[in-house]
Amino acid sequence: MNDLAQTLDAIGQRAKSAAREMARATDAEKSKALMMIAQHIDESQTALFQANQEDLDAAVKHELSPAMVDRLRLSDKTLMTMTKGLRQVAEMVDPIGSLGNTIVRPNGMRVSQMRVPLGVIGIIYESRPNVTIDAAALCLKSGNACILRGGSEAFHTNMALAGILREAMLQTALPKDAVQLIETTDRQAVGHLVKMTEYVDVIVPRGGKSLIRRLQDEARVPLIKHLDGNCHVYVDEHADLERALKIAINAKTYRYGICGAMETLLVHRRVANDFLPKIESAMAEHGVELRGCEITRTICPAMTPATDEDWAEEYLAPILAVRVVDSIDDAMEHIARWGSGHTDAIVTQDVDAARRFEREVDSSSVYVNLPTCFADGFEYGLGAEIGISTNRLHARGPVGLEGLTTQKWVLHGEGQTRG
Amino acid sequence: MNDLAQTLDAIGQRAKSAAREMARATDAEKSKALMMIAQHIDESQTALFQANQEDLDAAVKHELSPAMVDRLRLSDKTLMTMTKGLRQVAEMVDPIGSLGNTIVRPNGMRVSQMRVPLGVIGIIYESRPNVTIDAAALCLKSGNACILRGGSEAFHTNMALAGILREAMLQTALPKDAVQLIETTDRQAVGHLVKMTEYVDVIVPRGGKSLIRRLQDEARVPLIKHLDGNCHVYVDEHADLERALKIAINAKTYRYGICGAMETLLVHRRVANDFLPKIESAMAEHGVELRGCEITRTICPAMTPATDEDWAEEYLAPILAVRVVDSIDDAMEHIARWGSGHTDAIVTQDVDAARRFEREVDSSSVYVNLPTCFADGFEYGLGAEIGISTNRLHARGPVGLEGLTTQKWVLHGEGQTRG
Repeated sequence: MNDLAQTLDAIGQRAKSAAREMARATDAEKSKALMMIAQHIDESQTALFQANQEDLDAAVKHELSPAMVDRLRLSDKTLMTMTKGLRQVAEMVDPIGSLGNTIVRPNGMRVSQMRVPLGVIGIIYESRPNVTIDAAALCLKSGNACILRGGSEAFHTNMALAGILREAMLQTALPKDAVQLIETTDRQAVGHLVKMTEYVDVIVPRGGKSLIRRLQDEARVPLIKHLDGNCHVYVDEHADLERALKIAINAKTYRYGICGAMETLLVHRRVANDFLPKIESAMAEHGVELRGCEITRTICPAMTPATDEDWAEEYLAPILAVRVVDSIDDAMEHIARWGSGHTDAIVTQDVDAARRFEREVDSSSVYVNLPTCFADGFEYGLGAEIGISTNRLHARGPVGLEGLTTQKWVLHGEGQTRG
Repeated sequence: MNDLAQTLDAIGQRAKSAAREMARATDAEKSKALMMIAQHIDESQTALFQANQEDLDAAVKHELSPAMVDRLRLSDKTLMTMTKGLRQVAEMVDPIGSLGNTIVRPNGMRVSQMRVPLGVIGIIYESRPNVTIDAAALCLKSGNACILRGGSEAFHTNMALAGILREAMLQTALPKDAVQLIETTDRQAVGHLVKMTEYVDVIVPRGGKSLIRRLQDEARVPLIKHLDGNCHVYVDEHADLERALKIAINAKTYRYGICGAMETLLVHRRVANDFLPKIESAMAEHGVELRGCEITRTICPAMTPATDEDWAEEYLAPILAVRVVDSIDDAMEHIARWGSGHTDAIVTQDVDAARRFEREVDSSSVYVNLPTCFADGFEYGLGAEIGISTNRLHARGPVGLEGLTTQKWVLHGEGQTRG
């Protein structure tokens, strides 16, 4: 075993041992630790900005894209968002220890399920250093230990944040190893981390698709992962078209770069003549390029023709594919074939259509008369989110504290025996 | 791509398409199909016994162990158990479509979670042909499609059962491809099946540890798997010793071969002098060999000395390791170090000890004053079980219908927009 593997295994062992202590921690202890971390960040702004400047200088030297430099930069505002987030998570309801689904069996024994932490959570992320704090907050509040692995371009900032976390943790009742940062930029570290099934219970990768795809191939530890968000809005024949217009515009233009942004608009043939010219002019105002199917282009001939690649594409840009469909069945068939199972919406006034869509569309979120851009843990009332999962098992859709927990069966008896 | 891979991919495609239909099926349709399958089994007993005889003849020829031949054999009783199981599963409450955790957000939109099928479930099992029917029943009732892969030693029996399933399905409203059997004994089929992430959502392996370990290495599809059941009973200083004796005897002797059988007994030092001689004579009556730690052997000198291998071993046999511990902390430390996180029990009259044990022992099932042999889906009130999961994510412990489902978010609004 090489040095790197040994270092990582040692981190894993410490995390596993810390996880046992974390599982016993009270909500008061965990919340106090989060407040303590927030206070330490408030008091260390100068040091943080200095460390961040080193990363920014290196970014300029390595000619990183302006968008990447932007994600890297700490400002007064990003620091305030971090500390506000910590204090918000501190105030959330602690899910750990709650008992659910309790039944009493005929022999008198009581069967319940207790919510417990997952254990050790590995977070692998890219340029945004705020993830160091956001992820740590959610993991600690849900009673887990975490191992953080940030992007090399944010190395100095993450090291400074890790130092603050360590200092703050030492002043709490929680084990200091409950949050550890992998302090190497060696890319092989990630490859080893995702195979440490003995110490790590789940990996949450936060980053671009290429990172996720790579981890999916390499990982032996389960991933809570986010892949594509190819989201659809279907305007039904029974839609209120004014409402449909409002929903479609918001779904596309709220923010182009989010995974809940609408990428394809499906329109029932019966309302296409009415609706498509309206959407064409509204999207033109927003500078959104439209790509239409053949029938769409008989109504709006100025549109670029859409190809199969457009149905498959997650643009994350001011581009929208438009298709006319003959029925709700065709709309659902299109979504099943081309969609990514992320978030899909129907606009309709017809209860049967709404009911069919919500039952039959197999996506992690299905909406009736709402824009797909609501796909977000805060909007769902989760208080905070560690990410949006496109897995089917365990956590699906926006993942809050509960997604970082599991359950165990707890049975109580008075000496009942079997058989 | 070779022929085998093509065949399996075609099975996967058909299953995926059937899964979409299954997700829409009503409970009445699914239950009727299960009753229909039971009826067809009742009417095909002669053909089934003939097919089974072929497997039994081959088993004798290949000199399989008597235990294996026994598992292979269909009798009037096993057929009746199958059909009774089908009718019981038919009568269970269908979890699909139920809405839970509904909240209304400040903007008026309603957020719920709807229970939906997992999709396509692969079941890989060994010699018991009844799994073909039991697994199909649970998958169908929970709205899933399934792909079955039985052991080669039960090939003819499984083919006959698959024929019955097909015949019965054709007389129902369900898609016939909702249950498919892989009709080849080529071992590479399993290797391909567990990598078909495009078509298969989860694999449930039912078999020995060597099968599970092999699949764990090869699989890219998530597994709901069962590994070791190294279960403990801890007799606390505040235990009612009569009750403790009854529990320990039942935990060990109810059935030696089940995963919930107690493998190590931990006894608090303060009650060891009283308790150990009693357990020694009771276990002797049952022909259970005891292996004790040093302190145990100062009290019961006739016992074989226990080594570290004994703490780690899942005997599944009339052998029991016995250790004296100084405190509940030492007992929990032993369980954390040597246990498999399956099922562990405390016997105590003290509420604080009970509360600490149920909170701090990180096993899929934790019992207070009950024998570990209760680890079973029927005993927990699940109605039936597809297996016992030693995973932390998704399903943990006994897995019933709900473990074969997932949830999706369903949001309803009246045209609310974001931002």
